[in-house]
Amino acid sequence: MLGTYKIRTDLALEAKERFEERDVEIRGVVVHEQYNQDKDIHTTVVKIETENGAKTMGKPQGTYVTIEAPNMSVPDEDYHREISKELAGHIVQLLPKKKVESVLVVGLGNRQVTPDALGPRVVENLHITRHIIREYGKEVMEDDTQVMVSGIVPGVMAQTGMETLEIIQGVINETKPDVVIAVDALAARSTKRLNRTIQITNTGINPGSGVGNHRQGLNEETLQAKVIGIGVPTVVDAATIVYDAMEHLLDVLEEQERKEFLDEMITPSLNQMFVTPKDVDDTVKRLSFTISEGLNIAFQEV
Amino acid sequence: MLGTYKIRTDLALEAKERFEERDVEIRGVVVHEQYNQDKDIHTTVVKIETENGAKTMGKPQGTYVTIEAPNMSVPDEDYHREISKELAGHIVQLLPKKKVESVLVVGLGNRQVTPDALGPRVVENLHITRHIIREYGKEVMEDDTQVMVSGIVPGVMAQTGMETLEIIQGVINETKPDVVIAVDALAARSTKRLNRTIQITNTGINPGSGVGNHRQGLNEETLQAKVIGIGVPTVVDAATIVYDAMEHLLDVLEEQERKEFLDEMITPSLNQMFVTPKDVDDTVKRLSFTISEGLNIAFQEV
Amino acid sequence: MLGTYKIRTDLALEAKERFEERDVEIRGVVVHEQYNQDKDIHTTVVKIETENGAKTMGKPQGTYVTIEAPNMSVPDEDYHREISKELAGHIVQLLPKKKVESVLVVGLGNRQVTPDALGPRVVENLHITRHIIREYGKEVMEDDTQVMVSGIVPGVMAQTGMETLEIIQGVINETKPDVVIAVDALAARSTKRLNRTIQITNTGINPGSGVGNHRQGLNEETLQAKVIGIGVPTVVDAATIVYDAMEHLLDVLEEQERKEFLDEMITPSLNQMFVTPKDVDDTVKRLSFTISEGLNIAFQEV
Amino acid sequence: MLGTYKIRTDLALEAKERFEERDVEIRGVVVHEQYNQDKDIHTTVVKIETENGAKTMGKPQGTYVTIEAPNMSVPDEDYHREISKELAGHIVQLLPKKKVESVLVVGLGNRQVTPDALGPRVVENLHITRHIIREYGKEVMEDDTQVMVSGIVPGVMAQTGMETLEIIQGVINETKPDVVIAVDALAARSTKRLNRTIQITNTGINPGSGVGNHRQGLNEETLQAKVIGIGVPTVVDAATIVYDAMEHLLDVLEEQERKEFLDEMITPSLNQMFVTPKDVDDTVKRLSFTISEGLNIAFQEV
Repeated sequence: MLGTYKIRTDLALEAKERFEERDVEIRGVVVHEQYNQDKDIHTTVVKIETENGAKTMGKPQGTYVTIEAPNMSVPDEDYHREISKELAGHIVQLLPKKKVESVLVVGLGNRQVTPDALGPRVVENLHITRHIIREYGKEVMEDDTQVMVSGIVPGVMAQTGMETLEIIQGVINETKPDVVIAVDALAARSTKRLNRTIQITNTGINPGSGVGNHRQGLNEETLQAKVIGIGVPTVVDAATIVYDAMEHLLDVLEEQERKEFLDEMITPSLNQMFVTPKDVDDTVKRLSFTISEGLNIAFQEV
Repeated sequence: MLGTYKIRTDLALEAKERFEERDVEIRGVVVHEQYNQDKDIHTTVVKIETENGAKTMGKPQGTYVTIEAPNMSVPDEDYHREISKELAGHIVQLLPKKKVESVLVVGLGNRQVTPDALGPRVVENLHITRHIIREYGKEVMEDDTQVMVSGIVPGVMAQTGMETLEIIQGVINETKPDVVIAVDALAARSTKRLNRTIQITNTGINPGSGVGNHRQGLNEETLQAKVIGIGVPTVVDAATIVYDAMEHLLDVLEEQERKEFLDEMITPSLNQMFVTPKDVDDTVKRLSFTISEGLNIAFQEV
Repeated sequence: MLGTYKIRTDLALEAKERFEERDVEIRGVVVHEQYNQDKDIHTTVVKIETENGAKTMGKPQGTYVTIEAPNMSVPDEDYHREISKELAGHIVQLLPKKKVESVLVVGLGNRQVTPDALGPRVVENLHITRHIIREYGKEVMEDDTQVMVSGIVPGVMAQTGMETLEIIQGVINETKPDVVIAVDALAARSTKRLNRTIQITNTGINPGSGVGNHRQGLNEETLQAKVIGIGVPTVVDAATIVYDAMEHLLDVLEEQERKEFLDEMITPSLNQMFVTPKDVDDTVKRLSFTISEGLNIAFQEV
Repeated sequence: MLGTYKIRTDLALEAKERFEERDVEIRGVVVHEQYNQDKDIHTTVVKIETENGAKTMGKPQGTYVTIEAPNMSVPDEDYHREISKELAGHIVQLLPKKKVESVLVVGLGNRQVTPDALGPRVVENLHITRHIIREYGKEVMEDDTQVMVSGIVPGVMAQTGMETLEIIQGVINETKPDVVIAVDALAARSTKRLNRTIQITNTGINPGSGVGNHRQGLNEETLQAKVIGIGVPTVVDAATIVYDAMEHLLDVLEEQERKEFLDEMITPSLNQMFVTPKDVDDTVKRLSFTISEGLNIAFQEV
């Protein structure tokens, strides 16, 4: 009966957990978990294999890799290098098998709002090579990246007046990248996941993701190119926090009472709010660096 | 019996309201309200006149002026000019009666965390005059500001390793301003107050204010100078949101149950979180400009 | 015989002056000057009316309005409002006569290099309306802007790996604005013009403009839309400074000697350098605000 | 006869070279050079040992280490790690021999002017530990930094109205660090040195250094603490560029003519200008990271 009030999560892992709580097995969804004790990294791969599985999970068919590492928010440079390598490995796996010649990295989100600045910051730290390879050829790159890497920070609708999708489609039409990698800040359901989880998926970035309102999905259907989505949960919806706190209390109420109660509690104004940790500046700065390093490494290996 | 769980607010106005809800009159606290219909500005002056009043309110003795204007978050430049003028009037009133020759404006908070960037942004937009007047005399200022205005953005402890108070005390010892004006982002109790309320007080800025952890108070006692505090609530504590939502539910519980319940609900991690609106970048940018204009106007009138 | 070494200027006004120095009248080029004593604003309108005039001037046919005001670099808010109005008037004049329904403002340049941040900063301060009008209709805008205003900061090639032109063309194809307004930092020939001159032209922005390397022109031909260019000179090429200083000395040399000398002096590394004033942060911040206000006013009058 | 026009350089290395050009040996100045072929790093140690040497060099007595590496401006992370280690070694050498318990790192310059942002950016990337060690003791730092590191970005006079020295003195009086490390952007004489040279000195930072106007010296005399200065030349004075270009031409003139000529050429406005490379954003970002890593390493070794 949970879920009459719509709890939002951008993490497939959390969507899955909601069912586990209730001991439900979801047909069409396969899950593999792995734990690297040395590095204290949990990796979960959720594969949504059927249309039915997609419907139940509320997420498109595809592969969702989640890397969880409690130390991700700690400023240990060597450890972050490990995470970058782990990430690079998963990105390479999700890339199309045939030769990738060019990649466009899209930094979604609002540079001006700290927890939403992840995507823009990742693009800032990338090794951009497309213009160099186009002008001088791959030879000048030596042992370095051979892929033509381009990057864009489209901004959010309040800044541009345009849908992010419109801008990205326009840029793709002109520059025809083989693959698009979209990086975004996500909303998690649980504060425990904030800033210590990276999700990598071959389904792109889909509606309602992130802190702001990046409306339509960036996926193979809308962009006519393979789209890999990389996300880090940096916020929880304010409504979710309240909902979670009340969950047990609500158990004592009848369904109808509960619904009325929630409608009253979760005010529209609360939907315009997000919850984020006080040290979000540090963690976003560090994680964006970890992710751009992961991409830089992946592009050398392709 | 509310208040066994400590709800935090930096607004004297909200401290007062908590008592009104319970029809309690507080001795030693005088309140005047005023409404300007033309400009749709509510002004409330709370004077805490006795030690007893201070204890009950949980705020130091002094005058707390609150300007509330729903349109403060709207990008109407003419309207913001009105707010700036209103603000300037109150600042001039709270300044010491004897001639003020020099003012240090302190921009508290973390420039890197959007809702905490208010103070730093205000200082960025000020007309700084101290160095000019010291070098060329007041004559060069013509009809402009005659007060020596200096400004500093001390940063937060995670960035500097020092207490904000240590830095400010050091700067004051060297430069001896007559008055300190400290600008900070505040925590409100209610999301309705966010980004549409300005509090001006002659008691300075006191413990626990703001988004981050600016530990000790900036007040006449610690700084050996008159201190005016200007604050705008830009966040609500995450714990407060939860508390408020649960308040009515809690009514059905016994006191002991309630206490246990809250202890469990309001987890320590929640205390490291804040709630803020998604468009906080726009409103902080606009309000910081409104406040610095208010200060610029006030300094011309002194 | 000047001009064997190519001196670069983005200002039509300066291109014209080079001929005046030598008492040459240029066929196909009409110049009108005007001086507003009250506001101390010089306005020069240079019309390049023939292909021949264009060739001689080294600039495309069209109208180039230059506003010069020595006080532009002074922080007087009322004065800047006057400049904004003056600017708005010229923009409205250069807009197509038929109804303009939608405008895309492009902020060219590199947000990370102070004198090149003008364009990005202008877009930051614009009233963006396209998404609001598309969702709610013009009615909600009341007496405010009725034009659908969108804005984009494409970044520079080193950041994106893409030509600015590719990005803009893509965005225009998707969003079909009636008019494009491109704002850019320019290179002047003389340090005296820096940060106190605004050029408005209906020819767009053309090769070699700005601090960085925004390669191909943004004009009606490349963008399939009317393009208005707005520019402020914020830098002088380092090579120009040297050239100017040596000009008189060079007079004593034979042409061949002079050429050899210049080839040696103006080293390639000098071409990778620019000259800019030490207070460029203040003036760029202020002027970008003045220009965005000018645009905001213009869009209300269309 | 050179030097009648005062050419400014903040690099002891360049001050020395001026004499070498004229085959002059300077008494009281000892120079050691070293070249690491593997890493392509030139290291020059200039020791000014007598008052006479100081006068001739125009720099205070002390040790000036210069690291030159052409690849410093290249985005090769491994190479930058090497530079960081090299730098760390020199810093440790220049630190007082007795136990250093606390260090204050001062990031001089203007965060808003790209080539002057080096100092502020270095502080942004430091591991700040003072507040942690003061609260929890050294035990919590494990194998990490045991020194109490604090940091401050005082801003420039146009932003604060105060002398940088006033602010630093104030902060030092309150927090009593054993050593101050001041990081600043420097002016070089030659464009060839820009962004590929680091100077480390135990004399602090002295008048006229940097892009802006940081007036009085930060040294043991003014701060009552050991001061290490770390600087990277990121600009050349505009006047210097012109002077250098004209130098040979001037040889043909009589001394008096030459002087008159220079007075005319090097206009005051030119003194308000600086020359910097177009890609200064990239190199300052990278070098500030290299330097903060160097400091982080040094603080672990103390």
